[in-house]
Amino acid sequence: MEQPKNQSRAPSAIVFDVFGTVVDWRSSLVAELTTYGQTPGITADWERLVDAWRGAYVPSMNRVRLGEQPWTKLDDLHRQSLDRLVAEFGIQGLTETDLCHINRGWHRLHPWPDSVPGLLRLKRRYIIGPLSNGNLSLQVDLAKHGGLPWDVVFGSDIFQHYKPDPETYLGACKYLDLAPGQVMLAAAHNDDLAAARANGLMTGFIPRPTEYGPHQSRDFGPEQDWDVVASDMEDLAARLGA
Amino acid sequence: MEQPKNQSRAPSAIVFDVFGTVVDWRSSLVAELTTYGQTPGITADWERLVDAWRGAYVPSMNRVRLGEQPWTKLDDLHRQSLDRLVAEFGIQGLTETDLCHINRGWHRLHPWPDSVPGLLRLKRRYIIGPLSNGNLSLQVDLAKHGGLPWDVVFGSDIFQHYKPDPETYLGACKYLDLAPGQVMLAAAHNDDLAAARANGLMTGFIPRPTEYGPHQSRDFGPEQDWDVVASDMEDLAARLGA
Repeated sequence: MEQPKNQSRAPSAIVFDVFGTVVDWRSSLVAELTTYGQTPGITADWERLVDAWRGAYVPSMNRVRLGEQPWTKLDDLHRQSLDRLVAEFGIQGLTETDLCHINRGWHRLHPWPDSVPGLLRLKRRYIIGPLSNGNLSLQVDLAKHGGLPWDVVFGSDIFQHYKPDPETYLGACKYLDLAPGQVMLAAAHNDDLAAARANGLMTGFIPRPTEYGPHQSRDFGPEQDWDVVASDMEDLAARLGA
Repeated sequence: MEQPKNQSRAPSAIVFDVFGTVVDWRSSLVAELTTYGQTPGITADWERLVDAWRGAYVPSMNRVRLGEQPWTKLDDLHRQSLDRLVAEFGIQGLTETDLCHINRGWHRLHPWPDSVPGLLRLKRRYIIGPLSNGNLSLQVDLAKHGGLPWDVVFGSDIFQHYKPDPETYLGACKYLDLAPGQVMLAAAHNDDLAAARANGLMTGFIPRPTEYGPHQSRDFGPEQDWDVVASDMEDLAARLGA
């Protein structure tokens, strides 16, 4: 195999953070909820709800990671947070069917425009798959919905651990029968990459400076000398010779 | 969703037996080994070796299933059987590199001619994935090698169980977040389908009457009233409205 450009060594597989790195969760959810709320005439500040919902994401996983709550898959953590926020925001008129539909909005997020073209290029040369905190069924639905051309799909429920627990990064390597140094994590989040590097994986950074909309406060650029720093998914493919 | 032809209910996902059902392991291995042996001039009855190797498959998994051997992934069971058979057959001159390469022949099996066209059709309408006794990395390599367009990839190492243990069929349903009745197993083997049905899954039979070459002794036709009986993978797609 040719050496990719600007790289002294190439991975055999690339695993991807998904929420924020591959799909644009914020715009997808805000657009869907705004449209969804119009029909039954439910009034809410959907943008604020989405931001608060995402704000509950890491704390909810940390309760599981710290053992305060038994293993709970992300769909169920999302639902617990949604129920709490709907009450806090005083949103009226949502039925159980509505709440289920809204919660599954996380299964219908849109890829960033460069994600599918870049992944299709990377797939020609590398094994590619998500390494996300989403559960397997969520990842499968996202791929069907957005046309993500994965070769393998990891869900946090397979590992019964959430990132940044080492069991996730090392579990993916084990199932791929590859050493950590043969696997690259591609992510838009420096903390995810730092954990992957600490476990011996290669690292690829893609900035997603609009992930959090007007509330973005970090991850505008690389904070370490990641193995590859790309401008988007297609640039990542180019830099990896794909 | 329209009801598929000849079906009172449709699955949401279809999982597939792989060795024999999707890929032609016998012809692939015999052809590869015959070619491989020519270069170093290693003399062996490769066809007989392949048949004996496959003959060791179920007994080797049963040792794990019955607890006589701790969990061992299929790549390693294949290697244990290969080492024993090479000695028994008195095959001379194989290096460790040769043995590794031969063992990984199971990662390079060719799909039957109708498999990829049929799977591409099924993928448009259903979630599709392997439910095989092969380990995850073997399934990923088979898909890359043969262009199998899976949406999700299950390996027996995820379940730490081999079929027909219920943990495999039910584990796939759990990760897909589907009830067993929403998942179909498609297989060329009546015993695999019987175990899937016993666990509540839907069943689809495809005959592969040349799987074992001249040694085929069974599975020429359906032995129960499986939910769908198709002539090949494209016919399965047609019968399922895909």
